[in-house]
Amino acid sequence: MPNVTVEGPPLEIEKKRLLVKALYDATRAVYNIEDVVVLIHENPPENVGVAGELIVDRRKEAGGLRKKF
Amino acid sequence: MPNVTVEGPPLEIEKKRLLVKALYDATRAVYNIEDVVVLIHENPPENVGVAGELIVDRRKEAGGLRKKF
Amino acid sequence: MPNVTVEGPPLEIEKKRLLVKALYDATRAVYNIEDVVVLIHENPPENVGVAGELIVDRRKEAGGLRKKF
Amino acid sequence: MPNVTVEGPPLEIEKKRLLVKALYDATRAVYNIEDVVVLIHENPPENVGVAGELIVDRRKEAGGLRKKF
Amino acid sequence: MPNVTVEGPPLEIEKKRLLVKALYDATRAVYNIEDVVVLIHENPPENVGVAGELIVDRRKEAGGLRKKF
Amino acid sequence: MPNVTVEGPPLEIEKKRLLVKALYDATRAVYNIEDVVVLIHENPPENVGVAGELIVDRRKEAGGLRKKF
Repeated sequence: MPNVTVEGPPLEIEKKRLLVKALYDATRAVYNIEDVVVLIHENPPENVGVAGELIVDRRKEAGGLRKKF
Repeated sequence: MPNVTVEGPPLEIEKKRLLVKALYDATRAVYNIEDVVVLIHENPPENVGVAGELIVDRRKEAGGLRKKF
Repeated sequence: MPNVTVEGPPLEIEKKRLLVKALYDATRAVYNIEDVVVLIHENPPENVGVAGELIVDRRKEAGGLRKKF
Repeated sequence: MPNVTVEGPPLEIEKKRLLVKALYDATRAVYNIEDVVVLIHENPPENVGVAGELIVDRRKEAGGLRKKF
Repeated sequence: MPNVTVEGPPLEIEKKRLLVKALYDATRAVYNIEDVVVLIHENPPENVGVAGELIVDRRKEAGGLRKKF
Repeated sequence: MPNVTVEGPPLEIEKKRLLVKALYDATRAVYNIEDVVVLIHENPPENVGVAGELIVDRRKEAGGLRKKF
């Protein structure tokens, strides 16, 4: 503890390295505790809904353009 | 926010569409907030235990019959 | 299962009644499973950050006006 | 309810059987409630960070030796 | 890791002691990893819905009798 | 999305401000997405178990000394 869980879209491994390092640094500094575990949960765009619509469908409508997620 | 997370069995995409739409409508109406994100987490039947037994094993015992999960 | 968890702001009990009923109806209909548990987690505005700022601080800046959360 | 969720590394199925049985027995005994659902979430070593570093990278440094995760 | 999270009703402290010990023993034995963190989340009966109804309302209907949750 | 959830011990509000700002900056930079929500869940020391023992009990044994959590 503390444990940090990120629910986000899929991510390449180099970005995962950056993310766990940055979240660890931020969390350790605030709590002053070394034992920080970070979990990255990758959610495919057909499993996330924004404003009642799947991300995968919103992208199609936008012509493949990735906007907010 | 609000964020709605569903932990359930695997689901075909057409049902995901229905689910995020219905959960969005219900949540927006109650909180009166537009920013609703819905996450669907699909759990394979060998990763869920009910009454101390994996779903995948319960189905075998029931002759493949799907009952409660 | 399925389990539905809502992370949102505090809510009066009458709205909780509406929320669990609506989320149950939506979830049961899509999965065709009766065993639906709904959890409502209420988060005080000093425990939620949007765009890097606590909700409680965003409201002060907006003169107490509640906007998006 | 109660619901028990385990976030851990990947696990072979025979160990999942042992885990859901043991967690169910422990949880039912303490709460005195039969309705216990156990979810096992398997996290690949490139999605978990300990001390700011991905598990997959820590293992490489340790010559493939698996230590704490 | 592994992390075990229990979502359940409120619990007296002596039962919390039993619960974290039993969940720790079970989880450590299966994963063969020492670093197990257990979180107990206590949910008041007005924040949990079963079959579309708040637990607090189900108990009233049952004359205060506590049944499944 | 992405959503970041921190499970940690109780925290004073000034530290919450620092935490949501730092986690937001880190997450937005890696995902290149603006919509980041951060949730801080505060867990009392009698609700967290480390190595099979409640934090509240470990502190007593250590003479009130706070070590790892």
